[in-house]
Amino acid sequence: MEVTVLGSGSAYPGPLRGASAVALRLEHGETWIFDCGEGTQTQLMKSRTKTGKISKIFVSHLHGDHVYGLPGLLCTLSLNCSSAPGQQGQCLEIFGPVGLRLYLRVALRVCSSELMFPFTVHELEPTSDQSPPAGLPDPDLTACSPPPHPQERPGRTLRPDPESDLYPLLQDERVSVSAFRLFHRVPSFGFCVQERDRPGRLRVELLKQLGVKPGPLYGRVKNGLSVRLEDGRVLGAGEGVEPGVRGRRVCVLGDCSGLVGEGGRRACQGADLLVHEATLEDGLREQAEERGHSTPSGAAALARDCAVHTLLLTHFSQRYKPAGGPGGAGSQGGGVTWGGRGRRAGA
Amino acid sequence: MEVTVLGSGSAYPGPLRGASAVALRLEHGETWIFDCGEGTQTQLMKSRTKTGKISKIFVSHLHGDHVYGLPGLLCTLSLNCSSAPGQQGQCLEIFGPVGLRLYLRVALRVCSSELMFPFTVHELEPTSDQSPPAGLPDPDLTACSPPPHPQERPGRTLRPDPESDLYPLLQDERVSVSAFRLFHRVPSFGFCVQERDRPGRLRVELLKQLGVKPGPLYGRVKNGLSVRLEDGRVLGAGEGVEPGVRGRRVCVLGDCSGLVGEGGRRACQGADLLVHEATLEDGLREQAEERGHSTPSGAAALARDCAVHTLLLTHFSQRYKPAGGPGGAGSQGGGVTWGGRGRRAGA
Ligand SMILES: [Zn+2]
Ligand SMILES: [Zn+2]
Ligand SMILES: [Zn+2]
Ligand SMILES: [Zn+2]
Repeated sequence: MEVTVLGSGSAYPGPLRGASAVALRLEHGETWIFDCGEGTQTQLMKSRTKTGKISKIFVSHLHGDHVYGLPGLLCTLSLNCSSAPGQQGQCLEIFGPVGLRLYLRVALRVCSSELMFPFTVHELEPTSDQSPPAGLPDPDLTACSPPPHPQERPGRTLRPDPESDLYPLLQDERVSVSAFRLFHRVPSFGFCVQERDRPGRLRVELLKQLGVKPGPLYGRVKNGLSVRLEDGRVLGAGEGVEPGVRGRRVCVLGDCSGLVGEGGRRACQGADLLVHEATLEDGLREQAEERGHSTPSGAAALARDCAVHTLLLTHFSQRYKPAGGPGGAGSQGGGVTWGGRGRRAGA
Repeated sequence: MEVTVLGSGSAYPGPLRGASAVALRLEHGETWIFDCGEGTQTQLMKSRTKTGKISKIFVSHLHGDHVYGLPGLLCTLSLNCSSAPGQQGQCLEIFGPVGLRLYLRVALRVCSSELMFPFTVHELEPTSDQSPPAGLPDPDLTACSPPPHPQERPGRTLRPDPESDLYPLLQDERVSVSAFRLFHRVPSFGFCVQERDRPGRLRVELLKQLGVKPGPLYGRVKNGLSVRLEDGRVLGAGEGVEPGVRGRRVCVLGDCSGLVGEGGRRACQGADLLVHEATLEDGLREQAEERGHSTPSGAAALARDCAVHTLLLTHFSQRYKPAGGPGGAGSQGGGVTWGGRGRRAGA
């Protein structure tokens, strides 16, 4: 997995820091986008990310600096569609809080935006403790239901699993994604992407040398059990397989001054990467909390509590200029990247 | 007046050309924005335009590359409001085709965008000959009426004056603005900004020397009439006043393959500046027309027919890269500018 911060600025897209957006390139080639502030499509063009590979978009919360780039991104994905095999025929899945479907539908329909691919919006239903009352969705607004876009497919309404306190979003043979609740001026969510562990491959050459023939013994070896060979020797547990690849876990949090419930701690526990906001410096903690935001120390405390491997801070107030100037981190250059190959369990 | 092209690209905001937006700085200090594609606020920050002076926004048509930057621009104007005297208390007026009010309302309300100033959306009702039938506003969509934003003030619905074929938008003692109809894939409009002529000031020193006393004679002199002095001499017509300042006329057109009706020709006649799209090169005229667009020759023909002084082309397909590279015209640098001081009539 590889994570690219396309925009590290809060509130608005400035010339030196784009608005919030993170690209996650998965091992099998798809790219997922987390938040999509105004200008995300332009930041994508500047980065090495291939827009044709974008298959899912996750929106943490409905503030403009996280979502105003979404209609334009969809239009541009569509323009590039002929060269975008990731999109052809495939349904683009979009996840975000209740209200996202209405916003996207009106933005695309009022602007007669034709799309070459179907899309669906799955809405996360927040709980009433995720924001001050004024930040909760307005039922008069969300009751408004204009006719769907011709390419829109019905989406689900998602609620937290009472046991785990997590919103199950999707899972397939490679990866699973869940969301968890955060506190902010409006309800906000974090997303946890968990790769599945991959068992090690059989060391076929070694097994041949030992005279083990394909058959039931291979199954035992593959499952990491010890086996007794025909000549009486014993092949120890795990000796017949390559080390397995442990699935990695990446958590990307929306704006927040803290977690709500137990889901977030559970999701972030032992994560390889935690992407967390740090809008204001530690000296302005009170001001940050008042606005539903975090500071670097606050983010670090969560990372430490959860034994996270790497903490990546983002969503900096535009008052903080990138150290590198116009080409600096998270700015024009196309973003900061984290990632590399999978780490091997036991290696 | 001074015109700055903030984005000269069609379809989407690219790294080298922003999406459509033009800033017009008026003599009395206000700035008006014509079209507001995604990223306009960032282009504004790079330019010399003072966001605090923005008092009116005109949207030519409801394609994303002309309007997806509008909600974000309003939010950012509001953030800068304490340092923005142009906005304080004053109502931001927004003009655009039917559908704009719904789009803006939903975008601002879904995203809980608080604004520090009131705004109003005046909608232009297109006629059925401004686009193919598929491009006309969908009544099922525009019937949708979510509750207004707390800062939203009621706006007008504007129709063309049957005599002049122009939509009268506003007029005050300094300037008047009208709109006219264009043909495009969706109904599109052009805007004509006309400064009022300013009469020349009295040449008070000269009048004193000639012994003319303040009184009724001053009125005659000011009105450019000849007067007989007490000593029998005659002061010729216009000799007692400075040359007047002819009001200039700037026309900014939205995407189009041509005019609809007589309004456009009337508005553009003798304009000092015509801002016209030229999406594709002359060799691709058929393709351009099919998509409701123009070529440089098409734009030049209109400019010549209307005896326009200066033609400024914009809205270039992103396939055409700026000659100057990343810092070239209409790109990162903050825009191409036209303008200067008023020309004096008869000077
Ligand atoms: Zn934010
Ligand atoms: Zn936020
Ligand atoms: Zn356009
Ligand atoms: Zn257009």
